[in-house]
Amino acid sequence: MSDRRSFLKTAGALVAGAALLKPSRLFAARAEGGVSQTSGSFSSKGAFALSWKPFTGQLKYSFSISTNTRSSTPIILTQLRWQGLVGYGEASMPPYLGESQASVDAFLQRVVAEVLPRFDDPFRMEDILSEVDRLAPGNCAAKASVDIALHDLCGKIMGQPWWKIWGFDAADTPCTSYTIGWDASDDIVREKTHEASWAKVLKVKLGRGDYEDKRMITLIREINPDTPIYIDANQGWKNKRYVLDMIHWLKERGIVMIEQPMSKTDLDGHAWLTERSPLPIIADEACQRLVDIPALKGAYHGINIKLMKCTGMREAREMVSLAQALDLKLMMGCMTETSVAISAAAQLAPKMQWADLDGNVLLSNDCFTGMKLVEGKITLNDLPGLGVSPI
Amino acid sequence: MSDRRSFLKTAGALVAGAALLKPSRLFAARAEGGVSQTSGSFSSKGAFALSWKPFTGQLKYSFSISTNTRSSTPIILTQLRWQGLVGYGEASMPPYLGESQASVDAFLQRVVAEVLPRFDDPFRMEDILSEVDRLAPGNCAAKASVDIALHDLCGKIMGQPWWKIWGFDAADTPCTSYTIGWDASDDIVREKTHEASWAKVLKVKLGRGDYEDKRMITLIREINPDTPIYIDANQGWKNKRYVLDMIHWLKERGIVMIEQPMSKTDLDGHAWLTERSPLPIIADEACQRLVDIPALKGAYHGINIKLMKCTGMREAREMVSLAQALDLKLMMGCMTETSVAISAAAQLAPKMQWADLDGNVLLSNDCFTGMKLVEGKITLNDLPGLGVSPI
Repeated sequence: MSDRRSFLKTAGALVAGAALLKPSRLFAARAEGGVSQTSGSFSSKGAFALSWKPFTGQLKYSFSISTNTRSSTPIILTQLRWQGLVGYGEASMPPYLGESQASVDAFLQRVVAEVLPRFDDPFRMEDILSEVDRLAPGNCAAKASVDIALHDLCGKIMGQPWWKIWGFDAADTPCTSYTIGWDASDDIVREKTHEASWAKVLKVKLGRGDYEDKRMITLIREINPDTPIYIDANQGWKNKRYVLDMIHWLKERGIVMIEQPMSKTDLDGHAWLTERSPLPIIADEACQRLVDIPALKGAYHGINIKLMKCTGMREAREMVSLAQALDLKLMMGCMTETSVAISAAAQLAPKMQWADLDGNVLLSNDCFTGMKLVEGKITLNDLPGLGVSPI
Repeated sequence: MSDRRSFLKTAGALVAGAALLKPSRLFAARAEGGVSQTSGSFSSKGAFALSWKPFTGQLKYSFSISTNTRSSTPIILTQLRWQGLVGYGEASMPPYLGESQASVDAFLQRVVAEVLPRFDDPFRMEDILSEVDRLAPGNCAAKASVDIALHDLCGKIMGQPWWKIWGFDAADTPCTSYTIGWDASDDIVREKTHEASWAKVLKVKLGRGDYEDKRMITLIREINPDTPIYIDANQGWKNKRYVLDMIHWLKERGIVMIEQPMSKTDLDGHAWLTERSPLPIIADEACQRLVDIPALKGAYHGINIKLMKCTGMREAREMVSLAQALDLKLMMGCMTETSVAISAAAQLAPKMQWADLDGNVLLSNDCFTGMKLVEGKITLNDLPGLGVSPI
């Protein structure tokens, strides 16, 4: 507990300054904080050195889904060092998913103490990441922060980006959608819509009730009548017959796809809907990890893969293979994340029908550079690993 | 047809000499044959140069399964050149599978003419191999000879063996089984059994009828009472109740696993058997490619992956992911092949419960060095790509 308390004390101080500090300087301040000090000394026992720092992502707009609203997001940025090379990783912890900077710190302390000392070869990815996964259930963002850093590191050793190592064609990437969050003020919704004019696809979070849902779509369509829109209901709708009517109403207004309309536990309801819906129905909350996928066949048209849900790039790659084999469509999603996690997710974008990788664009203080959006299209670079570097 | 005829003429001459020539010299003789001449000139148009030569694998023992017997096996050895690097590949064509040196040559001519000129980056593996696959149905060994060479090439560019690129642990490889083929002579069966004393696991081909099957097992057990034995019936058994009794008889004699007891088309019969069998039932002929796997869940305990059936390493890696997700056990098999295709298959061995990768050991004229058997255990090297080189 004293570790925890000292971390929180340090973290608090660091978080306050995080928006002002560049991560390079955050990481440079290795000795100052209980966190990196502990991990530094632990990991110096073995071939790997894992260090991490809390970072507070500042949202350009306060962010609302059907269940909560916030103006910043807690992040932990990781570095995995091996023989002079550095792999960058990230954990992003939206509060409603139950992880926090404190829980990620505690988990990474265990990775440093119980897993890393037993390995010296970063290419032992499957064993390293399996043992990280076995440390405790959940903690998916914390696990992803190790997975992403390890992939960056191994990609750098091989001198290739992961989209190449996986044999994909960078030209196959879709355009990302850009999320317009709910707002009580019509003017702010209009302002967000104007600001999103660059986007080739919009994403709108619904599920606040018929009036608010239709108000959002109507306001957006008044300003932007044509850009395709993805809907994410975040389980906000209850009655399958209402949902089917709503989907028909939405289809008439140029909506092209619906994420998680109803409760993730309502498999039969979604199967009923998928059988009748004129638009693809995609599982998001209902699809966290590889093991969830087989049951979703028939109940949804496709799945939304997010690194922070599925523990990282390794399992995400497996999910792509399984979904393709089961003829499920693929979407890549994200949390509000820096360009580290977004560039990691983007490595898989060539396999996606849809992508919602705008998490870094939603931040006012992204502290890395990596995958770029060129007129809304996910544009991968040729740099090894994730192709990211601190700003 | 004149191409075909001149190839056959050349091939005939080459095949006759193949057992005497080292492949390095075969490949060096670039100008001599219609085959390499044609492919050489074709492929020099693009960034890739694909060349190939027929090679006749000489079997140490004439090789019998329930359907045929032979003393040699037709092979085509491929080379894919790109920017001074060479990737080695191989197609092995057991006659009963319908491919031949002539059909592989004709297919590779099309690869050179219709696919390779449209690519300049070997990392476009997915597109290159998808277009190769789309050229024509079947031709799985021909397709594998391109896939394997491309993997060897890309692994060399990355400077890593594929088992590392895939994140596997080389220590996880199983021991290979060593096949004792049927023979009419008790003495030869005894001789083969003595010669196989090095093997940690034996594999016996049955399916010639109750008397012959039990004679083989009895002869082998007289000399070697303890070594675990895999049975491959190659669809040779007909009646599911007979098969269940036979499996109980075999279990009492230390047999540990049964491959393809009945016709690949008899899914219900195998489901009945799998439900009752005290030994694992593995699909071989019933499982050719990725698309076959979902239907096998419930009908078999596992699948046997062979590169010459599934078009190569890329699809084999996908089959591993899908089989794991469907909780099917995994076996890696082979044809009689040189160390090129065996070493390619061995890259996936760490994921296998069982392996039958003795194809190169069954040859008296293996012309490459690569994966080694150390006291029967598949032992991967650290060399990039497949880790093979011509002897």
